[in-house]
Amino acid sequence: MALDESSLQKFGYMEREPLNAINIDPLQTGGILTEEARQALVQWGDGYSVCDFCPGTLDQIKKPKIKDFVHEALPEFIGADEVRVTNGARESKFAVMHSVANEGDWIVLDNLAHYSSHVAAQRARLNTETVSSTGHPDYWIDPEGYAKAIENVIDESGKPPSMALLTYPDGNYGNLPNAKKVASVCHEYDVPLLLNCAYSIGRMPIDANDIGADFVVGSGHKSMASSGPIGVLGVSEEYSDIVFRKSPTHKKKEVELLGCTARGATLMTMIASFPNVVKRTREWDREVENARWFSEKLENLGMNQVGDKPHNHDLMFFEAPNIYEISQKAKSGRYFLYKELKSRNIHGIKAGLTKFFKLSTFRVGRENLSTVVDAFDEIIKKYE
Amino acid sequence: MALDESSLQKFGYMEREPLNAINIDPLQTGGILTEEARQALVQWGDGYSVCDFCPGTLDQIKKPKIKDFVHEALPEFIGADEVRVTNGARESKFAVMHSVANEGDWIVLDNLAHYSSHVAAQRARLNTETVSSTGHPDYWIDPEGYAKAIENVIDESGKPPSMALLTYPDGNYGNLPNAKKVASVCHEYDVPLLLNCAYSIGRMPIDANDIGADFVVGSGHKSMASSGPIGVLGVSEEYSDIVFRKSPTHKKKEVELLGCTARGATLMTMIASFPNVVKRTREWDREVENARWFSEKLENLGMNQVGDKPHNHDLMFFEAPNIYEISQKAKSGRYFLYKELKSRNIHGIKAGLTKFFKLSTFRVGRENLSTVVDAFDEIIKKYE
Ligand SMILES: Cc1ncc(COP(=O)(O)O)c(C=O)c1O
Ligand SMILES: Cc1ncc(COP(=O)(O)O)c(C=O)c1O
Repeated sequence: MALDESSLQKFGYMEREPLNAINIDPLQTGGILTEEARQALVQWGDGYSVCDFCPGTLDQIKKPKIKDFVHEALPEFIGADEVRVTNGARESKFAVMHSVANEGDWIVLDNLAHYSSHVAAQRARLNTETVSSTGHPDYWIDPEGYAKAIENVIDESGKPPSMALLTYPDGNYGNLPNAKKVASVCHEYDVPLLLNCAYSIGRMPIDANDIGADFVVGSGHKSMASSGPIGVLGVSEEYSDIVFRKSPTHKKKEVELLGCTARGATLMTMIASFPNVVKRTREWDREVENARWFSEKLENLGMNQVGDKPHNHDLMFFEAPNIYEISQKAKSGRYFLYKELKSRNIHGIKAGLTKFFKLSTFRVGRENLSTVVDAFDEIIKKYE
Repeated sequence: MALDESSLQKFGYMEREPLNAINIDPLQTGGILTEEARQALVQWGDGYSVCDFCPGTLDQIKKPKIKDFVHEALPEFIGADEVRVTNGARESKFAVMHSVANEGDWIVLDNLAHYSSHVAAQRARLNTETVSSTGHPDYWIDPEGYAKAIENVIDESGKPPSMALLTYPDGNYGNLPNAKKVASVCHEYDVPLLLNCAYSIGRMPIDANDIGADFVVGSGHKSMASSGPIGVLGVSEEYSDIVFRKSPTHKKKEVELLGCTARGATLMTMIASFPNVVKRTREWDREVENARWFSEKLENLGMNQVGDKPHNHDLMFFEAPNIYEISQKAKSGRYFLYKELKSRNIHGIKAGLTKFFKLSTFRVGRENLSTVVDAFDEIIKKYE
């Protein structure tokens, strides 16, 4: 591509299409910015804008109030001894794996783990043993499965895994396993536990110390109304010198964070949204109620929610045999559902899916959820 | 910190202080957003906004035009066979080091390398051999120094280093060494070269293939008018299967990028600014002229620019014995210069520095640069 006037015109500012729709995309419902975050973006958008008064370490910046945020507010919010901001949940996971495990070591993860947990382990060149769920339809993770997996690793390698990981909730079914129990099983073997809270920190109350997790990761752009990429990483006192070890040559710089991470507007959006995010986690019960109400409505329309039931999270997985059947005959085939919803200004079920799909009810509100239910009702009737 | 109403009030939206000043901060002059990027921020600010039509790989997204940007425009712009976006220059450097070197291997870097190059090597658990510069006042890097450093590594470890790194320009003096010559010296030993263009890609024309660099990294928030954290990573065909290797279990995901990197507004700001950024690199001669003009003016006022002279880049390092002398007597001591400049609406020389400081003239323009020169003149006269 020659970079001439006409090819350059392809780039520049672009409009986003589905901007004012009712959004039930699980990736997106928790990452919609607050008004404050939108203002922060404009105010702090320029490169390295937060670095005006940097004393050499991002999390020590006093103006704007990053230090208080990272060292006071976040530890309290997620119940972890030491917290840092990172470039995302996956980056947090890799930082922990790369710090506490050596190449060739084993780690244990639930088999509902996000792909990025596996890829992080592969990047750290680790072996993985997975804990099975009960499979369809509950996809329940038995905490005792962690004991079995740890024993398998000991049999295989002669020593316990370097760490275990639990996805809380997982990104497919929105299941919330018994994390406290998993932590205590792991600790019986002196195996530290990482809790992947990409879908929980910023949505529901999380207290890593109370659960007994040694590491906890969250995703700003997924669940903390932040403009990404940004994440959080909480570490217990016991492991903080390992994960947050300093450079031998550049004493202020933390090696695993490459000196600094969210060096700009992303962090300021997280801070901007924080008061609102804290408050919304206190309204979590209402979100669970809405999810259950929605699940029941969709089940009444012939779909089937799998995973925890009654459900405890806004992320839900539905099987939709009736929708699938329609797609077999509809003119636009498997894209019909996407198009029908789009024409009703509803965004978030992946284009082309009909047989099963996931969605999120987080902060959508009962009124908009009713609109979605009515849309499904209409669409099903239309093709009957 | 209890997260009650009063402590939460500390957070939320914050104003940035020195927003409308003349900015000569080397960290910031190349990262100031274009109008298009500012619009993109607002439009694409929400979490995972670019993922609406993701086929499973960020750089393959067709709508918005990420695929064309990453696979057509960027390779042309930086002269690299394969390009990806990353979370920043340091993240790009770590990705390369972690891919091409094994723990315990040696790499060679210039001794003007940015701290983040050293910290990236430490994170990858590598040993480093540095190439000395000629030191004060030129800080010139002799390409033959790379031969010597490579020989040293061979003597020490029995094999050549896994890679070499050259900072182009370095972040202190803004020196542009003979990169072509360094590349050819390294290639005589079959050692691949990484060119750190954090301060050049987006400011001046860069063609990695022409230079002979195997890897090239840039920084969006530093030099490409992008909202960070975001960077670029270019790799030659020879190494692209290594650096961009795919996950064995998740075939679409690149391991070293953890599946995806700049998953949101950061990338859309880079795309928004791109036409403008391409054009400004074509006006680089004027920037060099301005830098030289400014350097001469400051030297006439009793300061001394070290590094390449005449200078070839907007980033410059000045020794200021006269300013230092004033600071010894001034009421606000070593903060006097910062305060005097601030009162004249000039931002960017680090608070507390007087004896020497760096600054950047990039895109400041002759008129504003005159204002800065006049300010120095006034300040010096005021304290005479
Ligand atoms: C369960 C889970 N963990 C982690 C992630 C990744 O989050 P991030 O983009 O912050 O790395 C996701 C993203 O979809 C997820 O669903
Ligand atoms: C020479 C040089 N390289 C790399 C970096 C780091 O850039 P990034 O923030 O994109 O990692 C800097 C930042 O100051 C730099 O000066």
